[in-house]
Amino acid sequence: MKIHGQPHRSIEAAPATRTARIIDQTVLPHVLEWRELRTMEEAAEAIKVMRVRGAPLIGATAAFGLFFALRDNASDAALQHAYHVLHATRPTAINLRWALDRMKRVVMPLDVAQRAEAAWQEVLAICEHDVQTNHAIGRHGLELFRAIQAKKADPAAPLQVMTHCNAGWLATVDWGTALSPIYQAHDAGMQVHVWVSETRPRGQGASLTAFELKEHGVPHTLIVDNNAGHLLQRGLVDVVIVGTDRVTAHGDVANKIGTYLKALAAKAHDVPFYVATPVSTIDWTITDGIREIPIEQRSAREVTHMPGLTATEVREEVLITPEGTEARNDGFDVTPAALVTALVTEHGAVPATPEALRKLQAQG
Amino acid sequence: MKIHGQPHRSIEAAPATRTARIIDQTVLPHVLEWRELRTMEEAAEAIKVMRVRGAPLIGATAAFGLFFALRDNASDAALQHAYHVLHATRPTAINLRWALDRMKRVVMPLDVAQRAEAAWQEVLAICEHDVQTNHAIGRHGLELFRAIQAKKADPAAPLQVMTHCNAGWLATVDWGTALSPIYQAHDAGMQVHVWVSETRPRGQGASLTAFELKEHGVPHTLIVDNNAGHLLQRGLVDVVIVGTDRVTAHGDVANKIGTYLKALAAKAHDVPFYVATPVSTIDWTITDGIREIPIEQRSAREVTHMPGLTATEVREEVLITPEGTEARNDGFDVTPAALVTALVTEHGAVPATPEALRKLQAQG
Repeated sequence: MKIHGQPHRSIEAAPATRTARIIDQTVLPHVLEWRELRTMEEAAEAIKVMRVRGAPLIGATAAFGLFFALRDNASDAALQHAYHVLHATRPTAINLRWALDRMKRVVMPLDVAQRAEAAWQEVLAICEHDVQTNHAIGRHGLELFRAIQAKKADPAAPLQVMTHCNAGWLATVDWGTALSPIYQAHDAGMQVHVWVSETRPRGQGASLTAFELKEHGVPHTLIVDNNAGHLLQRGLVDVVIVGTDRVTAHGDVANKIGTYLKALAAKAHDVPFYVATPVSTIDWTITDGIREIPIEQRSAREVTHMPGLTATEVREEVLITPEGTEARNDGFDVTPAALVTALVTEHGAVPATPEALRKLQAQG
Repeated sequence: MKIHGQPHRSIEAAPATRTARIIDQTVLPHVLEWRELRTMEEAAEAIKVMRVRGAPLIGATAAFGLFFALRDNASDAALQHAYHVLHATRPTAINLRWALDRMKRVVMPLDVAQRAEAAWQEVLAICEHDVQTNHAIGRHGLELFRAIQAKKADPAAPLQVMTHCNAGWLATVDWGTALSPIYQAHDAGMQVHVWVSETRPRGQGASLTAFELKEHGVPHTLIVDNNAGHLLQRGLVDVVIVGTDRVTAHGDVANKIGTYLKALAAKAHDVPFYVATPVSTIDWTITDGIREIPIEQRSAREVTHMPGLTATEVREEVLITPEGTEARNDGFDVTPAALVTALVTEHGAVPATPEALRKLQAQG
């Protein structure tokens, strides 16, 4: 999508050097800083400290990381080591494992001498696949949006969409998952307005989603996470759409902490609650999200401190609590399938039920 | 309650000068700054910019403001003017009107020459009444806490209480409403642990509630507002208790934005959701909270900016969004009576129903 009118991807392959270029998302929206990734360690660090985040982009970055490792040493032992280092960076996002497994499947049968080249080609394929997948999710989501718009009392009024965190192009290679239908609606001339939820503690809504929508020219209004229930209660939201870090085979959804509260409020007011997800985010090995999805515990500092830009345009982190306050910081929560109106995949909208998901899995 | 081991009230009358001393809550928890209020305009400003906040404390401060006005000019016209200026400061909190009406009722029948003296005595009475009311709320809340504790699988484990915003002694003259039973439980030797919800945008949980509990030595853990649903889902919360800015005659509750989401999540997991409220916060003139309670719209800057302490211990406000991001900032939301387990008043716990509230009103 666009930054200052120029098309970009969140991770860009540099074929000449066989490196990757990422936007450092920890300094957005105040600074647009591109960083080069050249080693497995740099890729792992970028995932770990969230220079890149979002399930699909984490997958793509991990794939680059595995390529960097194989370029240095393509032995089985080096491959295993890199797999484990990269896999340990973020425990909740399933695409990390999906991308690493896909890379491993391609290179393992090959001679050591052929592995790096094959890995590079596979990285490029993973990136292209992600872009096409997200575009397809957007097309299917747009159909849902049109149906909701058509039923509005005033179909000329903008469609009011609420989202959480950032499931935009910055969370993927391009287009995004939850924001893909929003971009496609906007590009098709549909009136759409987005309620952007701040998403404490890291503020990916306030920083990344607001940045994306501003750069692409999509009308939007920021709210604090606390404001979501009130807007739903007052009929100011037509549809909620979010991304996900892992979906179970029964349709439970792990996503950024706070998603569950929005799902409960959407249900209370009969507002459709959609989860945009590539099929690769579905973890077919588990069914009960509450019991089986590991919830990443993140640092208390994300809760007690807030980064931003001072009046003199210096990036600073400020302490917002008394000195020494303890904090708990669950990175994700699980929304039970019963609260999910549908999963919007690259193959279309699918009910969040074991039966519908079994059919989707069978389609391959 | 205590600051550095010394007992304090959030607003203290200075009889010698007939002025008031308040803690400037806009600079807590990093700076403890007392300010003197000497004029009606200073009292109005303190309420407006939230140097004082919390329904009961707003009421007490407005009463001081009316006294200051009458001391300068005790005519009917001056009284009316001061009433209107003070009443316009915050539209949602009902105690503001309650305190002003109480002052007016006392002074209006009197000769102009007697009004200031009577007003001063009434201010002191309002403050004392608030302290006693909140202490009684705490006693009744403590009984509820003990009953919940007794039913826990492990009654020796701490009672896990979640609260929102600040309904502590800083929101009242002393004791607080929602925090009063917590202080009384702690003082009585009961094991209690508090989940303190940050409460964006102004962070009264992170700054004020965390400050109060730290100074009083009550174990607590800060969470972002988004984390509440997850903790309730995982069985980590035994009871939710919050304050309120206005209750309708049918039991609907207006409170800090985000309260409604917590109430929905508590209901979803069968966790009791209590609203601690003096009877003076009940607005007997209205029934339907969603239609009839005005919701204060506050500045976008509270959403787009965050104040805190830099690494060099300077208080700074940082911008957390792209330049120019628009924001909506509803100060309050309304929790329907059906989600409220009980109102905890100075006369005991009362179901949030028209019948129970009618009886309470009849008791006077």
